[in-house]
Amino acid sequence: MPPYLSISRRTRRTPFTDRVTAAGVSAYTIYNHMLLPTVFTSVEEDYRHLKSAVQVWDVACERQVEIRGPQAAELVQMLTPRDLSDMMVGQCYYTPMVDETGGMLNDPVTVKLDEDRYWVSIADSDLMFWIKGLAVGYRLAADVIEPDVSPLAIQGPGADDLAARVFGEEVRSIRFFRYKRLSFNGADLVVARSGYSKQGGFEIYVEGGQHGEPLWDALFEAGRDLDVRAGCPNLIERIEAGMLSYGNDMTRANTPHECGLGRFCDTRSAIGCVGRDALLRVAREGPLKQIRYLEMGGEALPPCPEPWKVNAGGEFAGEVTSAAWSPDFGVNVAIAMIGRDWWDEGTLLEVATPAGNRMARVRNRSWL
Amino acid sequence: MPPYLSISRRTRRTPFTDRVTAAGVSAYTIYNHMLLPTVFTSVEEDYRHLKSAVQVWDVACERQVEIRGPQAAELVQMLTPRDLSDMMVGQCYYTPMVDETGGMLNDPVTVKLDEDRYWVSIADSDLMFWIKGLAVGYRLAADVIEPDVSPLAIQGPGADDLAARVFGEEVRSIRFFRYKRLSFNGADLVVARSGYSKQGGFEIYVEGGQHGEPLWDALFEAGRDLDVRAGCPNLIERIEAGMLSYGNDMTRANTPHECGLGRFCDTRSAIGCVGRDALLRVAREGPLKQIRYLEMGGEALPPCPEPWKVNAGGEFAGEVTSAAWSPDFGVNVAIAMIGRDWWDEGTLLEVATPAGNRMARVRNRSWL
Repeated sequence: MPPYLSISRRTRRTPFTDRVTAAGVSAYTIYNHMLLPTVFTSVEEDYRHLKSAVQVWDVACERQVEIRGPQAAELVQMLTPRDLSDMMVGQCYYTPMVDETGGMLNDPVTVKLDEDRYWVSIADSDLMFWIKGLAVGYRLAADVIEPDVSPLAIQGPGADDLAARVFGEEVRSIRFFRYKRLSFNGADLVVARSGYSKQGGFEIYVEGGQHGEPLWDALFEAGRDLDVRAGCPNLIERIEAGMLSYGNDMTRANTPHECGLGRFCDTRSAIGCVGRDALLRVAREGPLKQIRYLEMGGEALPPCPEPWKVNAGGEFAGEVTSAAWSPDFGVNVAIAMIGRDWWDEGTLLEVATPAGNRMARVRNRSWL
Repeated sequence: MPPYLSISRRTRRTPFTDRVTAAGVSAYTIYNHMLLPTVFTSVEEDYRHLKSAVQVWDVACERQVEIRGPQAAELVQMLTPRDLSDMMVGQCYYTPMVDETGGMLNDPVTVKLDEDRYWVSIADSDLMFWIKGLAVGYRLAADVIEPDVSPLAIQGPGADDLAARVFGEEVRSIRFFRYKRLSFNGADLVVARSGYSKQGGFEIYVEGGQHGEPLWDALFEAGRDLDVRAGCPNLIERIEAGMLSYGNDMTRANTPHECGLGRFCDTRSAIGCVGRDALLRVAREGPLKQIRYLEMGGEALPPCPEPWKVNAGGEFAGEVTSAAWSPDFGVNVAIAMIGRDWWDEGTLLEVATPAGNRMARVRNRSWL
């Protein structure tokens, strides 16, 4: 039996928490000092449903850091090695963010709201503290705040149909990692085609907590015949999809290149990035270890609450950081950081799991 | 029934987690992305035992930010309005830390290890991100890291006896908020007289995770006849003691003066503090609201997972942020942020609790 979670004001509730509770949430994690549901019926049943129907996710914990002002664009570029010079209003960019040594501080989606206004939709770290520190230290003309914006995701094969019933047919025309401002409850909400699954769907940036419950209710009202249910990022599906989790699969110790995010590092052109010097070096030499996917046979393994050592003939080859039993693929799927001597597709390795040593096969691509 | 907590690598284990599990922890919270036990037997039974015997607490989640280098002292002073110019090696200072607007970012204990080396023992926010941002932005010659240091607390009336059996009689001579380096397991550990209770005791800054279990075991071995048990910061006792919790009783929205921490603001002399300009203004005008303690009669109230509104004749007077039933005082004890019109000792107010409205009496001092 897992332990209970003690909830206090510090582990912040969201505009959707009462609805999530009513929907029968059974477990949470804490993410950006906020409640993030992790299980409703069971991880496996939630997974089946996510892949076959449509779910509404309380991902309010994807807090926004709003950066606004004459030097906002300059400040945002300081944060990431991805070149933002061509980014247009209406676009969302996945943006690894690094410190001065090239270490990952977060891997948010950056939303360009206006030429001088951005939302950085963060993973689990107080990225705002870093941004504020830079803004103060470099004396930049930019305001950095956490606005009252709580993302709600619609994910699953029925997402387009459900979203269209509430926001109108226009949602279907939103392209991947683009957003439109659509009307709900008298507010113009940012609706983006994005989300932390590969089942398709949207993230609605609910600006103003008062819109939270009306939107939740409207989605459930409209989606009854679609079997809409409350859901959450699903451990199995996100590993199958190869979606990394900051704090799990990568930390401050890792460079974007180690995380397989080198394609987002425009180290030549992203001149303003504070980690650029370090990453130029990394880009030249290449990483010594990198994210890979591992497939392990045998019975279903327990979850991975701390890294599992990966060995190659007794030598340390890396570590598994996320793992789950995949019902659809009939194997244990895992994300791991593997040394360059062992990272080729098909390499056979040994993983020290709590259930004993397991043979593992390296994959360069995820399952979905 | 509270919900379960899902544990992953991101909700980091500590060097003591296996021992805490074996000791029967029943609930956790997440604090600095790390497991912090909140309940063993029950909050009330843990409270009784803390006040009568001695407990060992896994407070590894009080992570350290180490600041080292020629400009370390300058950088630490930038963080806090407390004047650190007279701080000596061997001292621990409670240091509110603020942003450029005077908003609280954390309320750590700062430990001076050397003239050019400090540990900042943080409450629940990624303060390191702010410190690194300032160091980079101001181009300071200082290194900012999170070292492998995991505090373990010994708290309760039996703390001196227990600590003396493991570290020798010298621990008894450590003064409040001072530390000594004492030997254990071949390591020189920082042992400070401090802790998040008013029952007395020590915090041992366990430098090197490999010392965690040997120290835990040594304490339990030595303390059998003292009825030593695994414990944790106790909600009831910390409210009785008037100890504030960052994220619960104060947030980034509050100034130190609102938190009743004006005595730690040497705004005239703490010249380097980045929030000094804003706090000079606050010091001149005084805060409009401030932390107070509230006593409520009637039956035991449930815990306070989100602020409870406080009213005075229908007018908004403030909010309760932490509450618990105190068995020893036979009342509900609470911490609240109260407007200046209503903050005088003895003022009667009305609190909107989940169990209905309750009369509350304002206290200027805590119970312990």
